[in-house]
Amino acid sequence: MGKGRNPLHIRNRKNRRTPPGAAPGSINLADDANKPRLSITSFGPDDLFELPVQSLVDINHRIKQYPSLVHWIEIRGFGDKKLLEEICTEFDIHRLEMEDVINTYQRPKLEEHFGHLFLITRMLCHLKDGGMRNDQLSLFLSSKVVVTMQEQYDDFFEPVRSRIRAGKGSLRNSGADYLTYTLLDSIVDIYFPILEAIGDELDLLEDELFDKPTRASLQKIQIIKRELIVFRRTIFAERDKINDLLRTHTVYISDQTKLYLRDTYDHIIQVMDLVESYKEITASLMDIYLSSVSNRMNQIMKVLAVISTIFIPLTFIVGVYGMNFSTVDPITGKILPLNMPELYSPYGYTFVWIFMLVLVAIQLIIFWRKGWLEKT
Amino acid sequence: MGKGRNPLHIRNRKNRRTPPGAAPGSINLADDANKPRLSITSFGPDDLFELPVQSLVDINHRIKQYPSLVHWIEIRGFGDKKLLEEICTEFDIHRLEMEDVINTYQRPKLEEHFGHLFLITRMLCHLKDGGMRNDQLSLFLSSKVVVTMQEQYDDFFEPVRSRIRAGKGSLRNSGADYLTYTLLDSIVDIYFPILEAIGDELDLLEDELFDKPTRASLQKIQIIKRELIVFRRTIFAERDKINDLLRTHTVYISDQTKLYLRDTYDHIIQVMDLVESYKEITASLMDIYLSSVSNRMNQIMKVLAVISTIFIPLTFIVGVYGMNFSTVDPITGKILPLNMPELYSPYGYTFVWIFMLVLVAIQLIIFWRKGWLEKT
Amino acid sequence: MGKGRNPLHIRNRKNRRTPPGAAPGSINLADDANKPRLSITSFGPDDLFELPVQSLVDINHRIKQYPSLVHWIEIRGFGDKKLLEEICTEFDIHRLEMEDVINTYQRPKLEEHFGHLFLITRMLCHLKDGGMRNDQLSLFLSSKVVVTMQEQYDDFFEPVRSRIRAGKGSLRNSGADYLTYTLLDSIVDIYFPILEAIGDELDLLEDELFDKPTRASLQKIQIIKRELIVFRRTIFAERDKINDLLRTHTVYISDQTKLYLRDTYDHIIQVMDLVESYKEITASLMDIYLSSVSNRMNQIMKVLAVISTIFIPLTFIVGVYGMNFSTVDPITGKILPLNMPELYSPYGYTFVWIFMLVLVAIQLIIFWRKGWLEKT
Amino acid sequence: MGKGRNPLHIRNRKNRRTPPGAAPGSINLADDANKPRLSITSFGPDDLFELPVQSLVDINHRIKQYPSLVHWIEIRGFGDKKLLEEICTEFDIHRLEMEDVINTYQRPKLEEHFGHLFLITRMLCHLKDGGMRNDQLSLFLSSKVVVTMQEQYDDFFEPVRSRIRAGKGSLRNSGADYLTYTLLDSIVDIYFPILEAIGDELDLLEDELFDKPTRASLQKIQIIKRELIVFRRTIFAERDKINDLLRTHTVYISDQTKLYLRDTYDHIIQVMDLVESYKEITASLMDIYLSSVSNRMNQIMKVLAVISTIFIPLTFIVGVYGMNFSTVDPITGKILPLNMPELYSPYGYTFVWIFMLVLVAIQLIIFWRKGWLEKT
Amino acid sequence: MGKGRNPLHIRNRKNRRTPPGAAPGSINLADDANKPRLSITSFGPDDLFELPVQSLVDINHRIKQYPSLVHWIEIRGFGDKKLLEEICTEFDIHRLEMEDVINTYQRPKLEEHFGHLFLITRMLCHLKDGGMRNDQLSLFLSSKVVVTMQEQYDDFFEPVRSRIRAGKGSLRNSGADYLTYTLLDSIVDIYFPILEAIGDELDLLEDELFDKPTRASLQKIQIIKRELIVFRRTIFAERDKINDLLRTHTVYISDQTKLYLRDTYDHIIQVMDLVESYKEITASLMDIYLSSVSNRMNQIMKVLAVISTIFIPLTFIVGVYGMNFSTVDPITGKILPLNMPELYSPYGYTFVWIFMLVLVAIQLIIFWRKGWLEKT
Repeated sequence: MGKGRNPLHIRNRKNRRTPPGAAPGSINLADDANKPRLSITSFGPDDLFELPVQSLVDINHRIKQYPSLVHWIEIRGFGDKKLLEEICTEFDIHRLEMEDVINTYQRPKLEEHFGHLFLITRMLCHLKDGGMRNDQLSLFLSSKVVVTMQEQYDDFFEPVRSRIRAGKGSLRNSGADYLTYTLLDSIVDIYFPILEAIGDELDLLEDELFDKPTRASLQKIQIIKRELIVFRRTIFAERDKINDLLRTHTVYISDQTKLYLRDTYDHIIQVMDLVESYKEITASLMDIYLSSVSNRMNQIMKVLAVISTIFIPLTFIVGVYGMNFSTVDPITGKILPLNMPELYSPYGYTFVWIFMLVLVAIQLIIFWRKGWLEKT
Repeated sequence: MGKGRNPLHIRNRKNRRTPPGAAPGSINLADDANKPRLSITSFGPDDLFELPVQSLVDINHRIKQYPSLVHWIEIRGFGDKKLLEEICTEFDIHRLEMEDVINTYQRPKLEEHFGHLFLITRMLCHLKDGGMRNDQLSLFLSSKVVVTMQEQYDDFFEPVRSRIRAGKGSLRNSGADYLTYTLLDSIVDIYFPILEAIGDELDLLEDELFDKPTRASLQKIQIIKRELIVFRRTIFAERDKINDLLRTHTVYISDQTKLYLRDTYDHIIQVMDLVESYKEITASLMDIYLSSVSNRMNQIMKVLAVISTIFIPLTFIVGVYGMNFSTVDPITGKILPLNMPELYSPYGYTFVWIFMLVLVAIQLIIFWRKGWLEKT
Repeated sequence: MGKGRNPLHIRNRKNRRTPPGAAPGSINLADDANKPRLSITSFGPDDLFELPVQSLVDINHRIKQYPSLVHWIEIRGFGDKKLLEEICTEFDIHRLEMEDVINTYQRPKLEEHFGHLFLITRMLCHLKDGGMRNDQLSLFLSSKVVVTMQEQYDDFFEPVRSRIRAGKGSLRNSGADYLTYTLLDSIVDIYFPILEAIGDELDLLEDELFDKPTRASLQKIQIIKRELIVFRRTIFAERDKINDLLRTHTVYISDQTKLYLRDTYDHIIQVMDLVESYKEITASLMDIYLSSVSNRMNQIMKVLAVISTIFIPLTFIVGVYGMNFSTVDPITGKILPLNMPELYSPYGYTFVWIFMLVLVAIQLIIFWRKGWLEKT
Repeated sequence: MGKGRNPLHIRNRKNRRTPPGAAPGSINLADDANKPRLSITSFGPDDLFELPVQSLVDINHRIKQYPSLVHWIEIRGFGDKKLLEEICTEFDIHRLEMEDVINTYQRPKLEEHFGHLFLITRMLCHLKDGGMRNDQLSLFLSSKVVVTMQEQYDDFFEPVRSRIRAGKGSLRNSGADYLTYTLLDSIVDIYFPILEAIGDELDLLEDELFDKPTRASLQKIQIIKRELIVFRRTIFAERDKINDLLRTHTVYISDQTKLYLRDTYDHIIQVMDLVESYKEITASLMDIYLSSVSNRMNQIMKVLAVISTIFIPLTFIVGVYGMNFSTVDPITGKILPLNMPELYSPYGYTFVWIFMLVLVAIQLIIFWRKGWLEKT
Repeated sequence: MGKGRNPLHIRNRKNRRTPPGAAPGSINLADDANKPRLSITSFGPDDLFELPVQSLVDINHRIKQYPSLVHWIEIRGFGDKKLLEEICTEFDIHRLEMEDVINTYQRPKLEEHFGHLFLITRMLCHLKDGGMRNDQLSLFLSSKVVVTMQEQYDDFFEPVRSRIRAGKGSLRNSGADYLTYTLLDSIVDIYFPILEAIGDELDLLEDELFDKPTRASLQKIQIIKRELIVFRRTIFAERDKINDLLRTHTVYISDQTKLYLRDTYDHIIQVMDLVESYKEITASLMDIYLSSVSNRMNQIMKVLAVISTIFIPLTFIVGVYGMNFSTVDPITGKILPLNMPELYSPYGYTFVWIFMLVLVAIQLIIFWRKGWLEKT
């Protein structure tokens, strides 16, 4: 199996990371980093401006022009070091924070300092060819501005934007904290279909294991196991983060929004329960696989034992009458009456056949009683 | 095995759930949702009114007419969006709560806001053909009114209604909180017979495994394992909820009722202990199954080994005397006295038989000493 | 294996229990409940009255007559509903408590209300034919009176009564709380011989597993595993209860007695440590059993392989010289010199035997080097 | 395997213990208890008296004579009930404490009452023939006097006495609390060589398992597993005790000594870490053993399969030409040209050999490609 | 396998350690201890002195000369007892601390006393030939001076020195606490490449296990398992230490530096998550190995069973026609028509061949249907 094709490889392990020994807060970009795309969505109960922008200057201009609106600035792609440094300056983002943003293998966490809340969230998505994508979303929340940063261009938030556009629900009438909740909630919502997909795979796999287990089944179990390991690691950290968010005393999140976040928290607990259950089920699938391997061996051995036990004695019997003991000494011509007189009995051959058939019949009855002839 | 017939499938996974990206608090009904059935039971120490009602108006009217009675409003089936919205308005139920009510895969939980306690409880029941049903009961408790909502028509509460009608015990003389306790307690009471059924199955399964284990035994172990996984997940959340209920400082639950709830809590702990024990027993049944598969293999191999070890040497011996070495050169007619003189010895055939019988006897003694002839 | 004979069944599962839906605090007696036996032991530093009594009236009379003595009322057998109700009235026992008393599958617990401490304790005892009995003792402690209730007639407390009679130690000079401690301690003391018995069984089992493991060994492992599961469940709850007792601020237990209870607590912790160790040892015995099954298979296979590997080639060789290739064409009489000239060589037969013996010798040397001839 | 020779037996299980039902604080001695040996070591910065004593009177006299010195009284052997009772009186030791002292299977613990600290410590030592000894040391610490009691004569404290004699370090200049620390620390120090011995055994065992695993390896794994189970149980309790000692607010231990005890605590944590690691390694050795048993089976099967697969077809072929189909009807003399003309072909025998050699060659190539000929 | 070559041995177990019974705080050096190398790096915003020194006098002189600079004193090698004692005196290091420094198997810990913070840190590094090195770094932090001590000459801190030299970042402008943070952070940074290496090995191993598992794979699994056991033990203690550092209220660490340490803490948690995941993956690799051993056995058995099942009946058939039943009595010459007339049928031989070929064809079809002919 070539390395490139193995879907089991520990994905996302070699994420971008500051090299050992580098100064903390240093911004090291990969050569193949995506070119940044910026966009800003500004909304209030009555207003909605949504457009891509070219530079921070435009964004800055907009924020100053409409100080009463909520501004959601989305940045995708980190391929421009200068822009990242301008962002630090513009939004009072500490270099340590920016280091966490671009090193896209951070644990979900919540920090509050420098006049804003800083959240790191992991966005999981189930790939169609098995395996899982695990992107990082960094979010900065201040009183009127939400900045989200991600390296990939994937868009998880189109439903949120639709709801802003539609103007239904409380999103347009609420602040930046409610937008933050909405974004977090929409990420947690994606966990459920992933779990459902895993649950479906487990069901299919269980059918397969009881029906016709193969070496490929083992590989599928292993893939799911790995996915669940990654999933659980992520979910535990997300739960801690949301819990911190609920307990933190901050001006950036209203009690009303915390009520909604409590709901998100409940959903994560539910996801965790399911992941734990699925892990247990996966472990028991492994047991079933192992027992089915043994069972198949049993079946093979049974066939071998039945065939051998029936034919080995028969082969011995016919071997006996293949011996060349002679009733006549070829040299002296003396009659040797005890040497295999059966061979010259008129019904000798017939009797041997009858004897062998009776023997086979007896053996078959014994095997049938032992249950060896049943198709387990 | 067809998908439809596999009783192992992870049931209740695809419960109704708000689609990802939907606004929180949105009420999305399934097309096949049951048509709602409403009923109201109003009682006090001396009064009892019990009747189905057609609309919220009737209910509202009754509550206003008898402000001193306890009113228990039961709603089964969520197939009427308009009614659900009226319920929200009528009983001051928040849309986030209603969303939890109709998305029937919530974790048991307790919340207090908007002037009432909101409880979600899971009602487990063991299906006759194996597997488990897992319904959701949502309960709203305010000072005089208890609203219970469930999607299925199943009735778990007939015993409670009987006790209200009988007027015995303290139910008629107590408030809405005691009714709530009674409902919760009657749900926990149902756990015991389920566990007893599982315990019986485990006993039967153990007998079967020691007696005559089959591939079906493995499947039964797997079914019980899954049931216990679901059971435990549910019970843990229920315990947390009852614990919250005991610790919460609320006007809706009197200290007297908390005394009773403490008893319910003890029962849940007892159930949890049993579930843990059953999980351990199930794990050890798996070990027994695996060892019995190996044991059966041993038995098969023993039969094969005994038969082969006895007959293979015999077959060799008769093969020897089936060789055609000749005492006379067919061309020159020279006598070759070393070529198989046994064949022309008067007792050659007899000696070979005696030799073979002695060999078999020795082998049988060895096998008997090794214990290979015992029926393990 | 018939159901009746299987010692593995989950005992005590179907204990008496209030049927689902019954009113809390209802007293439902089994038809086969034992007829109650009452007795009262009253003692002080200088006095000792010990006698069976017929009715609560006698008991009540005695308590009033000797208000300064400690009174220990023992009730065995719950077969008289009226008596139980009188007891409730006489000793201010709540109906919820009485329900716990007669439903003899309660978890050990401690409650204080209604003017007394209420304790539930489990009394384990190891049955001679394997398995474990698990009775329930309910104890009510007020300032001068200790009421103990149990359904079975078994007497665990004769040593305590002996010590009361002997008048030695501090029992006669202490209060009802010290009597309670003495009873609890004597129950915990019984755990040690049970554990010793289990430890002995584990030792014997280990010898058996290394010596001659059979299917019965597996069954013994399973029995011990189940006993330890039950044992642990009980001990954990007992520990929690004694801990509650140590921490509770109650007038019924003096600090002096708490000092002694602390000792009982240490003993329970010791028992828990041992139970955990025994569980680990039992798990490793299972591993040994499984490995011994595999080892036996290995031995069987080795015998089969040695016999087959030696004789199958030999059988081939003799088969070769059993072929009927002819040096003379029977029809034309032509000489065919290449067809099996060995058969007519003067030393052909001798050489074949020498060749086969050398072959066997080589094989035996190879097997001996591989260690297949050793008796593992 | 005779019971006496099995090194796996659960040692120390049947330690001396008060019989169930005995009064708490009763002193029951075994018949074979060792005769007590007393000694007293009294020291100060400038003084050192060290001598065996015959009676408590001598000890008492010494303590009164030198009130400023630290007195360390060692008692080994509990075979004199009268002496033990005198000790209780002399040093204000409660009978409950003395019961713990002589019942030598107590969990390590710390208690403070009656004017002194009471410590129970377990002294482990690795026996040369495998297995572990597990003695109990009881220690009473008051302001100037340390009493240590143990049943066996073994001496663990000679290094401490040497340091007292040498007068180096701070031991002579410190109080009774520092002596206590020194004793505890020297017991913990003994854990390290035991662990090193176990670590060495694990290394040797691992070599053995990869090299030539036998049934004896399994037994060694089991012995180490049991040792680690006992070790861990002891260490956990010791850690709790030292932790209590660090947190307790007592006049008997100075803050300076606590600084040293903190070091002992760190060492115990280190020991615990190692024990946990060794347990994991032992578990993985079990896995390696099991896999090596399977591997050996594979090798045996491979040999059997190669030999059988090569020779079974060959035996069939030579069997074919051993058939007696005749080209001449013996009665009618009719020629039957289709009956085995090969037998009378001039090169028949040669061709059969060539055919068989080619077949073997092909099979060998296939086996070689499958890797069955490699020595795994 | 010779002991010296086994890479699995528990490394670092026999670290230098004070012999049991030695006085606490005694400095016992190994004979082969490295000769000490001293160096001092003194820096401030504008100054940088970096040079090796010969004696403590030089160091002392420098510190006094430049009291405003941060001084980092590095000591590698503990082979000079006198120097170590001078260090104790010079930097107010307690002898208990120095004992921990030279006994290089301490658990990571943090202590504050004697006017400085004392940290022990473990430096892991992955060896190229497998296995892991595990060195100890001891660090003393006072207001302006950082002393680091290690026994080996390895240099983990060259990147830190480069950053000091470069003068970039905040290192030159910050105090001794920030230098301490930088050193700790650079040690934690090394964990990531180690984990990546282990992750790569796990990936390769998984490919190998699915592709062509050998006994060497098992050994590799075992090596990784042991590495992860050591890794985890180390990381847990490191996490505790950093956590203590974050919570401790000390004058030696500024709040600003704690902000950076919080980042290091997050990294350690991330490492712990990964180690746990890798442990789970390693456990599942073991399962895959075991199942692949069973699978290979299955394949071997299948080949054996197919060959045997096909040829054993055929050999019987040809054996039948190798019997010597005679149609003519050799003595009387009587015709025996029932004795094997097939042998003289004109098409007997042909029919036997056809019969055997049909039999083989049927068997092959059965095997093909059972899937035994597929290459699993």
